[in-house]
Amino acid sequence: MTILEKIRGPRDLKALSEAEVGELADEIREFLVHAVARTGGHLGPNLGVVELSIALHRVFESPVDRILWDTGHQSYVHKLLTGRQDFSKLRGKGGLSGYPSREESEHDIIENSHASTALGWADGLAKARQVQGEKGHVVAVIGDGALTGGMAWEALNNIAAAKDRPLIIVVNDNERSYAPTIGGLANHLATLRTTDSYERVLAWGKDVLLRTPVVGPTLYESLHGAKKGFKDAFAPQGMFEDLGLKYVGPIDGHDTGAVESALRRAKRFHGPVLVHCLTEKGRGYEPALAHDEDRFHTVGVMDPLTCEPLAPSNGPSWTSVFGDEIVRIGEEREDVVAITAAMLHPVGLGGFAERFPDRVWDVGIAEQHATVSAAGLATGGLHPVVAVYATFLNRAFDQLLMDVALHRCGVTFVLDRAGVTGVDGASHNGMWDLSVLQVVPGLRIAAPRDADQLRAQLREAVAVDDAPTLIRFPKESVGPAIPATDRVGGLDVLHRSAATPRVLLVAVGVMAPVCLQAAELLAARGIGCTVVDPRWVKPVDPALPGLAAEHRLVAVVEDNSRAGGVGAAVALALGDAEVDVPVRRFGIPEQFLAHAKRAEVLADIGLTPVEIAGRIGAALAVKDELSKEKQE
Amino acid sequence: MTILEKIRGPRDLKALSEAEVGELADEIREFLVHAVARTGGHLGPNLGVVELSIALHRVFESPVDRILWDTGHQSYVHKLLTGRQDFSKLRGKGGLSGYPSREESEHDIIENSHASTALGWADGLAKARQVQGEKGHVVAVIGDGALTGGMAWEALNNIAAAKDRPLIIVVNDNERSYAPTIGGLANHLATLRTTDSYERVLAWGKDVLLRTPVVGPTLYESLHGAKKGFKDAFAPQGMFEDLGLKYVGPIDGHDTGAVESALRRAKRFHGPVLVHCLTEKGRGYEPALAHDEDRFHTVGVMDPLTCEPLAPSNGPSWTSVFGDEIVRIGEEREDVVAITAAMLHPVGLGGFAERFPDRVWDVGIAEQHATVSAAGLATGGLHPVVAVYATFLNRAFDQLLMDVALHRCGVTFVLDRAGVTGVDGASHNGMWDLSVLQVVPGLRIAAPRDADQLRAQLREAVAVDDAPTLIRFPKESVGPAIPATDRVGGLDVLHRSAATPRVLLVAVGVMAPVCLQAAELLAARGIGCTVVDPRWVKPVDPALPGLAAEHRLVAVVEDNSRAGGVGAAVALALGDAEVDVPVRRFGIPEQFLAHAKRAEVLADIGLTPVEIAGRIGAALAVKDELSKEKQE
Repeated sequence: MTILEKIRGPRDLKALSEAEVGELADEIREFLVHAVARTGGHLGPNLGVVELSIALHRVFESPVDRILWDTGHQSYVHKLLTGRQDFSKLRGKGGLSGYPSREESEHDIIENSHASTALGWADGLAKARQVQGEKGHVVAVIGDGALTGGMAWEALNNIAAAKDRPLIIVVNDNERSYAPTIGGLANHLATLRTTDSYERVLAWGKDVLLRTPVVGPTLYESLHGAKKGFKDAFAPQGMFEDLGLKYVGPIDGHDTGAVESALRRAKRFHGPVLVHCLTEKGRGYEPALAHDEDRFHTVGVMDPLTCEPLAPSNGPSWTSVFGDEIVRIGEEREDVVAITAAMLHPVGLGGFAERFPDRVWDVGIAEQHATVSAAGLATGGLHPVVAVYATFLNRAFDQLLMDVALHRCGVTFVLDRAGVTGVDGASHNGMWDLSVLQVVPGLRIAAPRDADQLRAQLREAVAVDDAPTLIRFPKESVGPAIPATDRVGGLDVLHRSAATPRVLLVAVGVMAPVCLQAAELLAARGIGCTVVDPRWVKPVDPALPGLAAEHRLVAVVEDNSRAGGVGAAVALALGDAEVDVPVRRFGIPEQFLAHAKRAEVLADIGLTPVEIAGRIGAALAVKDELSKEKQE
Repeated sequence: MTILEKIRGPRDLKALSEAEVGELADEIREFLVHAVARTGGHLGPNLGVVELSIALHRVFESPVDRILWDTGHQSYVHKLLTGRQDFSKLRGKGGLSGYPSREESEHDIIENSHASTALGWADGLAKARQVQGEKGHVVAVIGDGALTGGMAWEALNNIAAAKDRPLIIVVNDNERSYAPTIGGLANHLATLRTTDSYERVLAWGKDVLLRTPVVGPTLYESLHGAKKGFKDAFAPQGMFEDLGLKYVGPIDGHDTGAVESALRRAKRFHGPVLVHCLTEKGRGYEPALAHDEDRFHTVGVMDPLTCEPLAPSNGPSWTSVFGDEIVRIGEEREDVVAITAAMLHPVGLGGFAERFPDRVWDVGIAEQHATVSAAGLATGGLHPVVAVYATFLNRAFDQLLMDVALHRCGVTFVLDRAGVTGVDGASHNGMWDLSVLQVVPGLRIAAPRDADQLRAQLREAVAVDDAPTLIRFPKESVGPAIPATDRVGGLDVLHRSAATPRVLLVAVGVMAPVCLQAAELLAARGIGCTVVDPRWVKPVDPALPGLAAEHRLVAVVEDNSRAGGVGAAVALALGDAEVDVPVRRFGIPEQFLAHAKRAEVLADIGLTPVEIAGRIGAALAVKDELSKEKQE
């Protein structure tokens, strides 16, 4: 039996000797590499926090002490140490979540993995403890990358101000988010990293200065009296202490003993304290360390020795189609520039950055800044393309509305991972954009159905210079081309039944094949359909109400929340045109979706041809029944 | 003719002597007090930036140089100096906007007044200049309060990293937003304020140390070599220089000469630089200075001498009804705590703070932190009430969704200034919440129609401990009580016509009186109505579809965007229940609303009884016509 297998919970860690802790760390790395290679998942970040996770659970008493993981993809080791060692279905239906999960364990608190949240949670938990006079520590683990997010700043500002409210911030500084962390903060952390520790310098300074005649003692007193001034002269931990946080560090995050000792020191301090740990993403696994792009941030199913992917590739991804086309556009138009929020490669901007290094900016994990600086860029005469995951754009809703749209800035938003993404679970589905963004005046939204459409619509989008546009596409591989048979107004007609069509199916983006299949199933039951792809789903095409009026029922199918999405917009447009053909809305019900494969999720929520055809058939039957009753 | 009257644009400022500049400042203060007293508006902030605005326009060449005003309510002086001196209709229909406005002037850039945006805009504008090889300076003026917002941090992080991209940040440090600025940053700024300037200390240090034998010269070299270490020892401008910004300050912001000299220095620096100006909110106007709550941040129409309000009061405000009730709830429940984002008094939490000082937190201009820390507080066993203006909650959408709702936290959001607010213009209308928040799983939303309902629904809201709730109410005075005649399911029936009702009017919150009047108008035309107030507008009450089925038409009337609001939710619920009664949605069209009085705006967009009744009558006529055709 390995040491790891004997660990049933944090308590079991405390009895381990130093040597055993070292062995355990090795076992965990071995386990992680093999387990994650089998299912896919976040590998690099977890390899980096093995010793840190062990140290945290040896020093603190979870769950009485609260350990919060920012961007919870770094919680695999924590899972292993808190009784969860069956990784066989990691991120799969019924298996472990890829993030902390309250359902899984009392040791888990923050489930979503949108970055930079943990400090805010910690501040709230610490305040609750203070108000209720409860004992126990609150510890938040946050990466240097996540510190670039505005939420982290807002939290630091609040945490630092409360001198009497203990709270421990562990900065897991691996110099990266996906890619190397950017900005003034990163430079400052780099300074801290390369500085001798304060204590050593303090001792030296006292020694030297006090022995120096005339000005020495006075200067020492004066420097010492300036509280942090002397420290900063040699060990400029500056910024955090300037705010009012006690700074401990830098600590080698792979030296369990050193980390434990720093955490114990922090634990004794009756106020907010920041422990700065230096770690290495991908630690102990050569292929990860050699992979400079992201240190194996996330991997697919692969051979752990060769790192060859073991899952079949289904052809080019939507991301790569975008990535290639934006380079071509960049060649043609010098004014097109690009912005990423710490995800240059995942959103497909790698090629653009290589070709036009001066026309792309990584702004850090900072979607707000990505969006507001895009407004500035557009006002300055350029056309920015802001490429983010769909779920993360929620962070920048106010900026899209108030900075970009109100000022009629020509900015193109490209939303990758839109719709049901699946294995990453509730916080990563891009199922909100088509609803939330309907309110934005002047915004145009495209949902391409295939690669040709994506390329064409991207070009249509960047051609708009007096209003924002947005293109959304999913995570998966792009499917085969779906030709239009006809066009009505701006609507692509994908199918029109020979028999008089009774149902108008409005297929949003990648729902096109699903709708075509549903139409086939309905045809088999003698129900004729028209299937259209509106291409631009906002605003609703003026031709739609007229076309709808020729049908008995309109069904809108979208890979997005049923509340307020394209279905709602179509219903509104029909009502405004006094066209009262009943509308049925197919999409994601009002719930958070548990992790599972995309196809499994779609089946669970009824976004399949069979379900859609079945419900449309039933709705028509009710209507026929009612008509008959009326006639009788 | 006064000096002010002679200023037609920034050029005219440059010829003024120092004495004339002083006179001009006096004239501007005199003008501001009298002009703003006549119309109402932002007074305190503008009195504080008189000299700063003059200095900016003397040193820079707007509009070639770009001067950006964060929270644009501090732009009145800038307006006066850029050819806009007719303040007679300030914030009124057809008059000057209360914020910068691109339509008004080429000197204006950022129109919205959501705080903390200017640095991001500046970063974008500076990048655009760099890419295009354009000359000219970019200057952002931001308050110390706005620096507490996360967007400011994200921008600072990016700005500081680009050593070769000139950009000037002017921190207008008046120690306040509405109320005194909070947090670690505020403490740090306080340290900077009270420190001797760096140059003086540097000179002294060099002098003393170089004359000191043995260690002196070495120590000087070593301190000097540590770049900022020596500075910090005596003038800890720390944080900003730690990030990589050149720091100039602190400067007396009311000494035009000193400000001009600092700005000129900043102008010569080829990189990012921060100029720290100390100003006094309300400067030169005793009543403002004496008003500690907010230094006359905003005033209504008033006598400039006595400061007595000159506009009639229409009874208690919605804010005060909330403010009183939350104190009563606080007395009864120790676990109820409150959070404000730098607006304790404006959102009605003043009484609560007085009564329970340990149970309320001002988190700064930081809606994200307000919301995420509320998730922590709720998880820690308390029930937080987050009170913000409706428009500002957009900043925290992701946190409401992913931190509060996903974790099923019992948090009550109280949205003041919901719906059309009017005079503050496009960025301050609270017209998005009922649409955007429809997607949030588990969230319950109440829109009270009168004071009794607000009190009752607030109590219903804080009773929910496993999901978020939200209550929204408008800016105006609360109207008379509107009794229910009946209840169907959870719906309050406000009116049911004697004749068989053909129209179901769903009145959202303060639209109740409008709907009752529309029903009267329709009755006069022989069209019977039922008027219901759903009270909780999300989720849609299960009784609604059944009630709708008894009518020929459903009209949903809401003080919110027509896209995706309550109307969309009602339409969805009806479709799901196979009730295909036509739905007509009355609300705010997809546009940004220009500043004007609320009543004027409502009339412009057709949210009046006459318009609503007219359109319902017309829709019914079309339907009758169609039925007749069918029968023939």
